[in-house]
Amino acid sequence: MPLTASALDALRAIFPADAVLTDPADCAPYGRDDSKREALPDAVVFPVRHEQVTALVRLCRAHRLPIYARGRGTGTTGAAVPLGGGIVVGFERMNRILAIDAENRVAVVEPGVINADLQAAVAAHGFFWPPDPASATTCTVGGNIACNAGGPRAVKYGATRDNVLAVRAVTGTGEDFRFGKATSKAATGYDLARLMVGSEGTLALVTEATLKLVPLAAAKATLRATYRDIESAAAAVARIMAQPVTPCALEFMDDEALRLARLHGGESIPLAGAMLIVEVDGQPDALPAAAEALSAAARGEGLIELAAATDPREVETIWAARKALSPSLRSIAPKKINEDVVVPVSRLPELVAGLKAIAARYGIPIVNFGHAGNGNVHVNLLYHPDDPAQAANAPACLSAVFDLVLGLDGTLSGEHGIGLAKRPFMRRALDPVAIALMRQIKSAFDPDGLLNPGKLLPD
Amino acid sequence: MPLTASALDALRAIFPADAVLTDPADCAPYGRDDSKREALPDAVVFPVRHEQVTALVRLCRAHRLPIYARGRGTGTTGAAVPLGGGIVVGFERMNRILAIDAENRVAVVEPGVINADLQAAVAAHGFFWPPDPASATTCTVGGNIACNAGGPRAVKYGATRDNVLAVRAVTGTGEDFRFGKATSKAATGYDLARLMVGSEGTLALVTEATLKLVPLAAAKATLRATYRDIESAAAAVARIMAQPVTPCALEFMDDEALRLARLHGGESIPLAGAMLIVEVDGQPDALPAAAEALSAAARGEGLIELAAATDPREVETIWAARKALSPSLRSIAPKKINEDVVVPVSRLPELVAGLKAIAARYGIPIVNFGHAGNGNVHVNLLYHPDDPAQAANAPACLSAVFDLVLGLDGTLSGEHGIGLAKRPFMRRALDPVAIALMRQIKSAFDPDGLLNPGKLLPD
Repeated sequence: MPLTASALDALRAIFPADAVLTDPADCAPYGRDDSKREALPDAVVFPVRHEQVTALVRLCRAHRLPIYARGRGTGTTGAAVPLGGGIVVGFERMNRILAIDAENRVAVVEPGVINADLQAAVAAHGFFWPPDPASATTCTVGGNIACNAGGPRAVKYGATRDNVLAVRAVTGTGEDFRFGKATSKAATGYDLARLMVGSEGTLALVTEATLKLVPLAAAKATLRATYRDIESAAAAVARIMAQPVTPCALEFMDDEALRLARLHGGESIPLAGAMLIVEVDGQPDALPAAAEALSAAARGEGLIELAAATDPREVETIWAARKALSPSLRSIAPKKINEDVVVPVSRLPELVAGLKAIAARYGIPIVNFGHAGNGNVHVNLLYHPDDPAQAANAPACLSAVFDLVLGLDGTLSGEHGIGLAKRPFMRRALDPVAIALMRQIKSAFDPDGLLNPGKLLPD
Repeated sequence: MPLTASALDALRAIFPADAVLTDPADCAPYGRDDSKREALPDAVVFPVRHEQVTALVRLCRAHRLPIYARGRGTGTTGAAVPLGGGIVVGFERMNRILAIDAENRVAVVEPGVINADLQAAVAAHGFFWPPDPASATTCTVGGNIACNAGGPRAVKYGATRDNVLAVRAVTGTGEDFRFGKATSKAATGYDLARLMVGSEGTLALVTEATLKLVPLAAAKATLRATYRDIESAAAAVARIMAQPVTPCALEFMDDEALRLARLHGGESIPLAGAMLIVEVDGQPDALPAAAEALSAAARGEGLIELAAATDPREVETIWAARKALSPSLRSIAPKKINEDVVVPVSRLPELVAGLKAIAARYGIPIVNFGHAGNGNVHVNLLYHPDDPAQAANAPACLSAVFDLVLGLDGTLSGEHGIGLAKRPFMRRALDPVAIALMRQIKSAFDPDGLLNPGKLLPD
């Protein structure tokens, strides 16, 4: 349905003038995300209070207008793109930290709080919130909840779903509910709070969240291990995860990733078949033994060099490779396809070998890095749209990647979600009964299908 | 509907003769749980394969027979009691550990595996599964999933919901689905696996679960702290949880609990206003500093004595008080009401003070102990059914307990669930919109309402 004059009047009755955009030029930036997909909404609104969100959903329901929740547009799947027209709800101004409560180890926040702002605020109390996506300085907690964001720390501290205790939310009928408490335990009915996490704005609009905080570790130790080939590195990952000391980061980069990172990051970045970054945190007294346990597991067939660092400059050097990668990839292949597939850790060697074969078969370079401790690999297809052979092969190549992943008992996404990008593959990834159940859950929360239509669930 | 001859024939076609009970004397033990409630099912069946469960549900649907999943009957809420007649599905023979996979840190199990059997099996690989309810030697993993079981370790390692990665399950329509993978991260649709946890057999029958394993810590240290009064102990709990070292157990007992435990456990159990047991695990090198950090937090206004132990006999002495409590309570008040309420940790002092006032007002002794680090208190109303005044007051007293808990922003249950016992209080505890959503989720999984009817959700 188009945005009628009466609907627009009603919008303007809910929001002040500076919180409603309708000029296409103003709206356009709010119709994009980091998937490079875009669409033009009829309007963009910026709530600052829960009651505005409730009123908005009721209005949109009356006028049959689709509603797209949006944080800061850092998502990589198109989940926030308003493909069917309608209203984008930009939560960026609803960004208060309502409480930081050390005794209960929780923070209560509005959805528009920037992840890094939250981390800074809770660090002052000796805590952190585990989700640490690469976009932390830009992305919002609401967006983190929408896509179940992770990051390097998830290997020890879990992703967003593991660190949300309670929500306040508005369903597709404009009804609001609270579920969950500022407690680390609860067994009172179906867990509607965890159900919101990863639902990509298709079930309800989260207007407040109670987040589980974790005490900051007193100290960290960082190791860098280079390997002759990716198989050796993958075997080391499996050894590390099979022993008792859980690292707080276990990242990997393949040979191509190292080569590209070095182009941007300089010669301190090693060339090798693969590299692991292994980090452990804890009490200072415990770190030497913990680092030694991780070093022992990292050693083995194919290890080239193992370097340890505890002082901040050395640690910075070790992480430089990982951080140099994204700008390097963007400059080489601005239209790269980046999918964050997951496989069981023990299947990483097969995944990496399979990806090499797929790259060769389709003539598309594939660069791999990511959160090896979770089996969560960022598979980057460095496809050049100007190369007709690559452009023709890219869809089949991507399809082959997902077939490989699913064949290894993995899944489509570890932390980016489904959005538009992976929706065509949902039927391959999920049981038809599970999809049917999800569709009915969607209907329970949003019977008219107004909330982020066309996302996550397959047609 | 009664069990007709044709339905019974159909049951006997699915199950061998020794896996179907119909004699009331044989069925009766499977109609009780540890809530002391009981009801007689029409039949009890013991599946050993997933396909039998699927066939059973289809049969029950065709014949409109209610289905009650049952582990070992250790639940305390009546969740497994077949109140409306029908078929009890006893999962006790479907008890294989299908895989223990160290590299992926998972175990794959059937629902009837006894918790302690699983712990022993995975300990041989250097792991544990966090849920450790007091009934661990008897209760099943399926039951743990049904009620989101916890235990002392949950303060550091989470309860069942935090430690289930994937399920295979049969819905109320007899359709089966798998959801989740042997991966610690996933963002592929609504999380149907976590939704099963705590659903008390009302949504689907879980026939297989993939569990997250955690490496066994190399060492432990245990502290016992006694306090002048419960307020001082509660303040210490809040201090402990506000500092960086997370204990792997933080239990408390009030003055009455200590007195009763001492009757059974002997004079090594101290008398005091309250006692905390604080345990920390980790690498041996780290334990002294960690124990000192916890000791520092435990010290403060009202502390009587702080005792540390690392050798097994001393530790045994410290835990003896906690373990002596349940038999002692059972012998004194076999019909005691035990509710496992939860409040934010910071509200523990108000909870305990409020409980004392309620005990005085209704003339019913209340004994409190539990998992203080989670704010999860086992409130025991030592009500004597033979005392007419107490019997008359017990319902109002229990109602006052829940009002107190909800007023402190707590919830009805931390780890026992709702079942029959707390169902009358669900409307007080939950948002009506949340209850309506749960009811619709229930309908999505079980449109005919065959799975554990009359449990968890209010009328």
